[in-house]
Amino acid sequence: EPDGARLLARLAALADIGRTGSGACCRLALTDDDRRGRDLVVGWMRELGLQVSIDPIGNVFGLRPGRRADLAPVMTGSHIDTVRTGGAYDGNYGVLAGLEVVAALNDAGVSTERPLVVAFFTNEEGARFAPDMLGSLVYAGGLALDEALATRAIDGAVLGEELARIGYAGSAPLGGIRPAAFVELHVEQGPVLDLEGITIGAVESLQGISWQQVDIVGQSNHAGTTPMRMRHDAGYAAAAVAHFVRALTREMGGDQVGTVGKVDLTPNLINVIAARASLTVDLRNTDEALLQRAETRLAAFLDELAATEGVSISTQRLARFEPVRFDPGIAARIAAQAEALGYTHRRMSSGAGHDAQMLARICPTAMIFVPSVGGISHNPAEHTQPADLVAGLRVLFATLLQLANE
Amino acid sequence: EPDGARLLARLAALADIGRTGSGACCRLALTDDDRRGRDLVVGWMRELGLQVSIDPIGNVFGLRPGRRADLAPVMTGSHIDTVRTGGAYDGNYGVLAGLEVVAALNDAGVSTERPLVVAFFTNEEGARFAPDMLGSLVYAGGLALDEALATRAIDGAVLGEELARIGYAGSAPLGGIRPAAFVELHVEQGPVLDLEGITIGAVESLQGISWQQVDIVGQSNHAGTTPMRMRHDAGYAAAAVAHFVRALTREMGGDQVGTVGKVDLTPNLINVIAARASLTVDLRNTDEALLQRAETRLAAFLDELAATEGVSISTQRLARFEPVRFDPGIAARIAAQAEALGYTHRRMSSGAGHDAQMLARICPTAMIFVPSVGGISHNPAEHTQPADLVAGLRVLFATLLQLANE
Ligand SMILES: NC(=O)NCCC(=O)O
Ligand SMILES: NC(=O)NCCC(=O)O
Repeated sequence: EPDGARLLARLAALADIGRTGSGACCRLALTDDDRRGRDLVVGWMRELGLQVSIDPIGNVFGLRPGRRADLAPVMTGSHIDTVRTGGAYDGNYGVLAGLEVVAALNDAGVSTERPLVVAFFTNEEGARFAPDMLGSLVYAGGLALDEALATRAIDGAVLGEELARIGYAGSAPLGGIRPAAFVELHVEQGPVLDLEGITIGAVESLQGISWQQVDIVGQSNHAGTTPMRMRHDAGYAAAAVAHFVRALTREMGGDQVGTVGKVDLTPNLINVIAARASLTVDLRNTDEALLQRAETRLAAFLDELAATEGVSISTQRLARFEPVRFDPGIAARIAAQAEALGYTHRRMSSGAGHDAQMLARICPTAMIFVPSVGGISHNPAEHTQPADLVAGLRVLFATLLQLANE
Repeated sequence: EPDGARLLARLAALADIGRTGSGACCRLALTDDDRRGRDLVVGWMRELGLQVSIDPIGNVFGLRPGRRADLAPVMTGSHIDTVRTGGAYDGNYGVLAGLEVVAALNDAGVSTERPLVVAFFTNEEGARFAPDMLGSLVYAGGLALDEALATRAIDGAVLGEELARIGYAGSAPLGGIRPAAFVELHVEQGPVLDLEGITIGAVESLQGISWQQVDIVGQSNHAGTTPMRMRHDAGYAAAAVAHFVRALTREMGGDQVGTVGKVDLTPNLINVIAARASLTVDLRNTDEALLQRAETRLAAFLDELAATEGVSISTQRLARFEPVRFDPGIAARIAAQAEALGYTHRRMSSGAGHDAQMLARICPTAMIFVPSVGGISHNPAEHTQPADLVAGLRVLFATLLQLANE
């Protein structure tokens, strides 16, 4: 039986790395704090007797051999990078629960038919380097390694250089471990399970993600002397985009969401009309056709805005992933195990992107969700009740054990 | 006769200090580049035989004695700090033209009845420390010295510490030099003279300035999983404010202007709903009652926005100056001198704030404007034709000479 207290202790220890004054976890991908977090988790992997391998994009795999070396392993895992205002559970929970599954098997002296792998993937959050889920995307063959290594961070750093700097540019062959199945345990990060009072989500789908950077070039000028009709205000144009995104989601309704989370003005001074603005637009929908419609509407608005404000606007794709359907068989097993363990459960869709959506490209995959209190995530107040964390761990344990013995 | 070529050479030399890659002048107040600019100008003052004194807020005065030491001096001057994307003329022109007036008098061996003072005032731009015109405001008794010294910069530095660090915390008594009159020569920074093809503006008024900082606290959350109706998005709220300011100026019409030039989101990441936003609102009007109406409308909008978005909003005044009427007598002399020299001229109002508006509190004051090509300012492309720069210099020379001999 996996030990919930041991999992919580590991979660607390990892959360202490990169903790900010406001109590957040800040371990942006490939920073020194990410390295410290990685070192801690790799140390635990070795203590548990796992065979650790690191691939050229910095994904880390800890393998527990099975009785049958000729069978493909069953894999679990997630990520340990965080956003700047991250909580203790996003990603970390799935990785450390995987380690606790191994620890429990070790304690009980139980072996499995198939090898078991606990993995953590590089730059899942996408908060420092775009796209999100970059490590698992490269692993699954969806992005060329050299292109990924050349990616620039929001702070200007180059991904490959940062990876080498923190000592995680590994030499294990990319995609060398090819799993028979992948199960990712994660906190929901949204309000559904919490609002409905349900403990376990068997995640059978994941919504499409569209990330763009919008760069606006206007003309800096004096805020006091420049008549309104003579302005080419990149700052106003940026505000108009964020205002439009909100209006668009209101008009489209359904589960269309849209967010402008990042805005940078130049020169960013009180009495200077901004010369340039750079902002990001995150659009998501479970329906690919609707997501495309949202993108089309935004593009039309940007054209119109460029003309009326007299600014030039260019866009750059940072990420684009279609909605994903997970493996119904794996989702059904998760639901069955939750049922057998006496937990309330439901089928559901994920609002967030996850490494599992990349793994789904190469093997049968599904996810297990546990409730996020108040639906809060990417926030230091992110919380999941310990009993729910333990419930998710037990469902993961049972599901992996079943898959690993087939 | 003042020497236009010598003025242009000094302007070019000063513009080289703090020049950025994009050709802008960046000498934000009390930075190392401001110090280098100050050192250069003070050196020129000494070369010209001026008696240099520096007051405790870092204003610098270069005095040329008159025949009558018992008469109050006539003062000219402006500022040499710049915004981050500044041009070569804003402020610098008025100071260096003052030096050229002195140089011309020296060359001709001409003395005046009254002493002549060329001054430059600290932090006129307000781009690093609020309020703008801070040095001249303290000099004129409108802000207590200790309060001014405690002001925090946008980069967190304390004004008094920066002043001491660059060696410009002087010991001359504050307001010790009390002028009989003040004339400030400046580029218009707006489009009026350029559009109308007029060389000289006799500035008889200056519009009211209202600067506020708006701080918004929402709740950071996940951009993918958080339904639109559950958001408390400080980034969206900031955009809504900028959108409202534009709509308000459109609705009010007249010469109401409004600018959101500075916006900072936290954590400022693509997939995180912003927890906090801080932005500035610059509102101006020539009519005090209308400016108050704009402020009232903004305040009402912020209340409504806080309620609908579920965020908390607080405001902080960064500057508030009522519209100013300059001395009609001085303005009339400027117009008469322009006429006598054969320049086209008109009475006009200033859209920008200027040190002259603070000096107007303690002595008869007016300003001379010359055209800004395309009305562009606070932009590296800020330009005034050399012939216009020389025209302004000649009108300044004639006006000062007249005032100094009365
Ligand atoms: N799970 C998670 O927060 N992933 C980050 C990528 C996203 O923004 O959905
Ligand atoms: N002249 C000038 O640009 N002054 C700065 C203060 C203002 O924003 O008007």
